[in-house]
Amino acid sequence: MEKTLHEIAVLIGAQLEGDPAVTVSNIAGIDKAQPGDLTFVANPKYSRFIATTQASAVICTPDTVAPGKNLLKVDNPYLAFAKIMTFLYPQRRETGMVDPRAIIGNNVSMGNKVTVYPLVYIGDDCVLEDEVTIYPGCCIGDRVRIGAQSLIYPNVTIREDCVIGKRVIIHPGAVIGSDGFGFAKDGSRYFKIPQVGRVQIDDDVEIGANVTIDRAAMGKTWIQRGTKIDNLVQIAHNVVIGEDCVIVAQVGISGSTRVGNRVTLAGQVGLVGHITIGDDVIIGAQGGVTSDIPAGMLMSGSPAIPHRLWLKASQTFQKLPDMRKKLRELEEKVAALEQQLRKEHRKE
Amino acid sequence: MEKTLHEIAVLIGAQLEGDPAVTVSNIAGIDKAQPGDLTFVANPKYSRFIATTQASAVICTPDTVAPGKNLLKVDNPYLAFAKIMTFLYPQRRETGMVDPRAIIGNNVSMGNKVTVYPLVYIGDDCVLEDEVTIYPGCCIGDRVRIGAQSLIYPNVTIREDCVIGKRVIIHPGAVIGSDGFGFAKDGSRYFKIPQVGRVQIDDDVEIGANVTIDRAAMGKTWIQRGTKIDNLVQIAHNVVIGEDCVIVAQVGISGSTRVGNRVTLAGQVGLVGHITIGDDVIIGAQGGVTSDIPAGMLMSGSPAIPHRLWLKASQTFQKLPDMRKKLRELEEKVAALEQQLRKEHRKE
Amino acid sequence: MEKTLHEIAVLIGAQLEGDPAVTVSNIAGIDKAQPGDLTFVANPKYSRFIATTQASAVICTPDTVAPGKNLLKVDNPYLAFAKIMTFLYPQRRETGMVDPRAIIGNNVSMGNKVTVYPLVYIGDDCVLEDEVTIYPGCCIGDRVRIGAQSLIYPNVTIREDCVIGKRVIIHPGAVIGSDGFGFAKDGSRYFKIPQVGRVQIDDDVEIGANVTIDRAAMGKTWIQRGTKIDNLVQIAHNVVIGEDCVIVAQVGISGSTRVGNRVTLAGQVGLVGHITIGDDVIIGAQGGVTSDIPAGMLMSGSPAIPHRLWLKASQTFQKLPDMRKKLRELEEKVAALEQQLRKEHRKE
Repeated sequence: MEKTLHEIAVLIGAQLEGDPAVTVSNIAGIDKAQPGDLTFVANPKYSRFIATTQASAVICTPDTVAPGKNLLKVDNPYLAFAKIMTFLYPQRRETGMVDPRAIIGNNVSMGNKVTVYPLVYIGDDCVLEDEVTIYPGCCIGDRVRIGAQSLIYPNVTIREDCVIGKRVIIHPGAVIGSDGFGFAKDGSRYFKIPQVGRVQIDDDVEIGANVTIDRAAMGKTWIQRGTKIDNLVQIAHNVVIGEDCVIVAQVGISGSTRVGNRVTLAGQVGLVGHITIGDDVIIGAQGGVTSDIPAGMLMSGSPAIPHRLWLKASQTFQKLPDMRKKLRELEEKVAALEQQLRKEHRKE
Repeated sequence: MEKTLHEIAVLIGAQLEGDPAVTVSNIAGIDKAQPGDLTFVANPKYSRFIATTQASAVICTPDTVAPGKNLLKVDNPYLAFAKIMTFLYPQRRETGMVDPRAIIGNNVSMGNKVTVYPLVYIGDDCVLEDEVTIYPGCCIGDRVRIGAQSLIYPNVTIREDCVIGKRVIIHPGAVIGSDGFGFAKDGSRYFKIPQVGRVQIDDDVEIGANVTIDRAAMGKTWIQRGTKIDNLVQIAHNVVIGEDCVIVAQVGISGSTRVGNRVTLAGQVGLVGHITIGDDVIIGAQGGVTSDIPAGMLMSGSPAIPHRLWLKASQTFQKLPDMRKKLRELEEKVAALEQQLRKEHRKE
Repeated sequence: MEKTLHEIAVLIGAQLEGDPAVTVSNIAGIDKAQPGDLTFVANPKYSRFIATTQASAVICTPDTVAPGKNLLKVDNPYLAFAKIMTFLYPQRRETGMVDPRAIIGNNVSMGNKVTVYPLVYIGDDCVLEDEVTIYPGCCIGDRVRIGAQSLIYPNVTIREDCVIGKRVIIHPGAVIGSDGFGFAKDGSRYFKIPQVGRVQIDDDVEIGANVTIDRAAMGKTWIQRGTKIDNLVQIAHNVVIGEDCVIVAQVGISGSTRVGNRVTLAGQVGLVGHITIGDDVIIGAQGGVTSDIPAGMLMSGSPAIPHRLWLKASQTFQKLPDMRKKLRELEEKVAALEQQLRKEHRKE
């Protein structure tokens, strides 16, 4: 879609230095951009390319100097880039129709412009607010509520009584509201504890492909506003995750653990159950957390320790065989010294 | 559902101390319970709350003393709680009907009260015993057998020839009987080895959401009675898992490994292929097991070592940089001592 | 299916020593094989069983000597075994028909003998080449191309614009082309970056059950010819994986990372984003890779280090508490020696 620099400057609130009538139709990396492309510099490392880029315009920070170039100056070029992407590549327009081949239960309430594809199953007493879209292969249980403008990709399962907020995106194959993993021991056997709670997902949450979020034993498993969850993440029953968290792929969070706001869990992190992770905590990839973490900490390793300590200890780890050898040598030397001194003492 | 304490005492085989006519309708935690609620103390840590709880009755161990309270005394309060949950929150009653919009193959044999939802595909020559339920989006391959009262949640795939026992629960998105990951090297390329075995799942097994269990190369991949598998677990071809095991989320078990009875694998554990894990073994979260483990061991770490050893070694890990520094200092001191003694020797 | 040794020798290009008219109908392990079975010895460890096996014939290496046995001699017995399996257990023959209950979009182009099961959804403008098979529950987005003889198992989602090569196998529940996990920070909130690229999967790739492969932010996420991916693997946006790689279950590969040819990533390995893994690299199970790895390296651990170094360091890890104790003892002894020498010095 062709846009003028003027249109784009208005869209992203940029200060335009250059020709407002120049048009662009694509976004490209600064080293590959061609005339007609728009590019951006979010990382100062790349600012040296501004002078030589073929791009028709560059989104950059206010301090950038590049005579003869069309510059769109903003405080956060990466955010501006994201907004322009949304503008240049608008989302697929859905039909706003319920396909007659979808299976819809009794007493389902639908807002305006709800799109339901064929091969969708929706149970009884559900509520789909305005502009909800549900792709083929989804199974929505009884009494589920889905907020306005939410997008449910193919083959998603949402079990009964779960509540999904507005503008939520659920990627293909995700499972919301499966039974929590709860059993009481009965001798050496296990007796299943009914999982009678639900999952609540608040506004603007994104849930990755093949993610699993278990319903609570009682009460709710709760993902709060703005949190983004990557693919193949496991969230157990009664977990609470705060606002604006980033949960990277293959993370596992055990039952009843509470995660604060703005927490980042990198890929393959595991949290044990019944612990509390403070606001703004970051856990490095593959970290294993076994106890509460106070707000603001950056932790790594399994079991997780403060990140800097972990970095140093990890670097030393490969010296372990060498250290052990040196330790043995020292023991021998010290024993020899001790013996020598004992002898000399005797001589005296 | 309102029940008298008398009814509940009969249900769980409790000795009732108090008023049998008192009624309860909910279960609640001991610190939050209100009149009309039933609560329980499974953990002695919480027994101090019995005196002050608002609950109408408390399930507790026989040694509990709480004058003026209605007590339901049992040996295993947590199990009693689980049984009451099942009583108060009975499972959804299914229709016992096969929806005409389901796709059913030729020569499919169905017992009494089988429920098949719309948007289900069932291949040829399948057997569904009494009271089996199959939710929308499931695909059941040819010649699959499913035992009585088993529950197959939405979007599950069970490929041809697999055998599912009685009272098995398979959560949404699980895949049973996908090809094992077997290839023969052909120069630098890989030639696929047909996976002609099957998966057998015995009675009372539970399989989590988006779990994958591969069919055997030949013979069977086998999950034995009573084992409980959490979400996103991977079980490779020809694995055998014994009875009453607990396999927590995101565990991976490689090909041909044998797991004994009553084994617990905590979250994100990995087992290499072709090993044997003895009965009653416990592997701590994120553990990596590369060799046979004798019965009864508690292991942690990657590679896994006895748990206590791992705990101590892990605590020492963060001291590594400090240890290395001290080691260097000692080396210098010892060298200085050696030199000094050599000098003194020469002086003599 | 009964076959003569002559037929099998021709099939696998073996030198037959023995009776070409003998027939076999099954394959079995050398220790369990019965008359009528064919067995093989790929591992020299098992060659001692050749003299006593009940099997009617043995596939073995050319140097094998076993008087009175029917031997099929080939350079690569395991590959020969795989080829015979394919011969004895031919793949299910599909109908080559599009079921009228499948939902097919506008302008979908289909080759010869395409099989589409009921409960399949195919969007507009797709191309399915000859002999493609699509199982129930699959959802294929608009403009997807699927190459000849590819096999898409149940409940797979392939989102719009993705390109699948020839003879590709995608196991149940896999998700191809879900949005990459890309957000721009907007204060403490996250703004979604549209993911407008696609996924390209080249010929002869196999993709495991419940795998997730995200579409590129721009351009493509790319899996090259012959690579085999096991279950529950996560591949992030803009990742490129070379030819003939083996990616074992539960591996996670972060955004924009490039993996060379013939790379093996063992189970539960994690790669951070924006790194390059050279050709023929092997990463051991649960390894965590945080920087570029040159071609040909064998690495293990998290963070990954050369495998031998890791083996030794891991063995030493459990000695850490003991090492720390010895270090303290040495410090005391050295301090004592120093003091003693100081004293003796003073005496002199």
